[in-house]
Amino acid sequence: MIIDVHGHYTTAPGQLQAFRDAQLAGQTAELAPVSDDELRESVEPNQLRILRERGGDVMLFSPKASGMEHHVPDTAVAAAWARASNDLVHRVCALYPEHFAPVAQLPQTPSGELAGVIAEVRRTVTELGFVGVNVNPDPSGTWAGRPVTDPSWNPLWEVIEELDVPAMVHVSTACNPNFHTLGAHYLNADTSVFMQLLQGDLFQRFPGLRLVIPHGGGAVPYHWGRYRGLAMRNGWPDPAELLGNVFFDTAVYHQPGIDLLTRVVPSTNILFSSEMLGAVRGADPATGIPWDDTLRYVEAAGLSPDDLAAVCETNARRVYPALDRRLKAQGR
Amino acid sequence: MIIDVHGHYTTAPGQLQAFRDAQLAGQTAELAPVSDDELRESVEPNQLRILRERGGDVMLFSPKASGMEHHVPDTAVAAAWARASNDLVHRVCALYPEHFAPVAQLPQTPSGELAGVIAEVRRTVTELGFVGVNVNPDPSGTWAGRPVTDPSWNPLWEVIEELDVPAMVHVSTACNPNFHTLGAHYLNADTSVFMQLLQGDLFQRFPGLRLVIPHGGGAVPYHWGRYRGLAMRNGWPDPAELLGNVFFDTAVYHQPGIDLLTRVVPSTNILFSSEMLGAVRGADPATGIPWDDTLRYVEAAGLSPDDLAAVCETNARRVYPALDRRLKAQGR
Repeated sequence: MIIDVHGHYTTAPGQLQAFRDAQLAGQTAELAPVSDDELRESVEPNQLRILRERGGDVMLFSPKASGMEHHVPDTAVAAAWARASNDLVHRVCALYPEHFAPVAQLPQTPSGELAGVIAEVRRTVTELGFVGVNVNPDPSGTWAGRPVTDPSWNPLWEVIEELDVPAMVHVSTACNPNFHTLGAHYLNADTSVFMQLLQGDLFQRFPGLRLVIPHGGGAVPYHWGRYRGLAMRNGWPDPAELLGNVFFDTAVYHQPGIDLLTRVVPSTNILFSSEMLGAVRGADPATGIPWDDTLRYVEAAGLSPDDLAAVCETNARRVYPALDRRLKAQGR
Repeated sequence: MIIDVHGHYTTAPGQLQAFRDAQLAGQTAELAPVSDDELRESVEPNQLRILRERGGDVMLFSPKASGMEHHVPDTAVAAAWARASNDLVHRVCALYPEHFAPVAQLPQTPSGELAGVIAEVRRTVTELGFVGVNVNPDPSGTWAGRPVTDPSWNPLWEVIEELDVPAMVHVSTACNPNFHTLGAHYLNADTSVFMQLLQGDLFQRFPGLRLVIPHGGGAVPYHWGRYRGLAMRNGWPDPAELLGNVFFDTAVYHQPGIDLLTRVVPSTNILFSSEMLGAVRGADPATGIPWDDTLRYVEAAGLSPDDLAAVCETNARRVYPALDRRLKAQGR
């Protein structure tokens, strides 16, 4: 079975953006009705078609990452936006329960206020069966907040650990013109959070917490020696010690990158993903291979059959136990 | 010949830091006398010893990057600090002209004011024979300024192009607790600037400008497919088009990273470097190989003899023509 842990609902019906626009215009906004047919039309020719064409079985499906826009400060606005986005994702996953499993957007805000965030974690995971959540390590979009290892984050990590779902550490739109959202901010966040974890003691405090760092871990596997050297110089544990709690996805869009990832990071800690439909669209004109058809690269990376199965399926079932339960309930 | 394009004077005699401390304390500071013997003692057991032991011939030598501290706003303080730092580097290079060639720190400040910066470029390159400069794309340390492609940077790029020296794009200390200086900020800057260049038209305006992105280009070679896909999606030129003006160094501290770099980036665009003495110190306990002995990794990367010579010598002589002239004047 091929499980893609990183897919986004970047093709939601226009009502969702209209709702958001009204919210941001300060209007009393309500999501206009969206029919099941509209939901089907939004994914069947897109994520679902591509998933099937490429031989994928299940995709973990979350709202569009750049659209989370946690930099908007109003907590009520954030709560309504996350709820509307998650409810649509939930409905898509209910329409295609064998193909999609839901992952939540959280109503974070730059203030770091967590009450509404925790409520949405509980609602989506406990009530709606979401199998994971996306946590933005930089809700301000300008890195005005505190590192994820700061005690102010504790209540969020606590509930995530308690509910036994992993968090994908995923920023949203950058609010700084120095950082292109998809080409710099995403990767920088992955890199920065890993370094925060290396400096901090988050997993001493939350030993059951599991974090997925997307986009192949930003710069981390490419600079694994740098992290080992820095850790040794500073008397920190070797970065390998983080691998009980930290996982990397495969949203890296060329063969040499995937080869590096699978060479450096143990197969136990790599989760197949395409980030589809995400940063890149279309195909490499030189090869005709779609940029985000990462399964091709993973399959060509020379992994043993066991390691390939770990990357494509069993790691995901272990890291996302709620997904495993969902699949087992389907007899899979 | 082995030319290391990225070495820092991280071992300067204590007088330099005392001068800086006095500056920052608001005192009328003057650099206390530093003897030639003190300079010799500061590099002979350090950079010079290691360079020789590893078979290196020449190192491009610049002031300690994290010590540049461009976030301090006073332009007169910045000018005096850059001048003192550069003058010491210049003296070391004069003591060991066959082993060290100087690269300048510039007196940038968060304001982006460039008069003093340009004056120091001219002083160091024209009067003192510096072969390159380090340009900080984030003088604020908090990314409060504008992308390097913004027209406000034009006067600096103009003089650098005119004097025909390359600029290494190198940040200094991070002023944001989310970013560890050596483990996140440096790499994020490399990644972010490359993305700025991909979005911008800097090399249309300055076709002769050459930029060296250190630390193996941050996350860029690992995500080369992402940049190609983003460029195609946005109708920008392929990232390969930047390679007439952009070069990557080899400060990547393990074999898989160097293998990725040399597989993805043409050998014409890779410059040997160790960033020594820099972010990492000591050796990998598993192999006994010093983290920053990057020559070992480069030599083991499977390059042809011609490509290896390009990476280790001829590219540097081409990208740094003032270095080439300096070496030729020495009969090398």
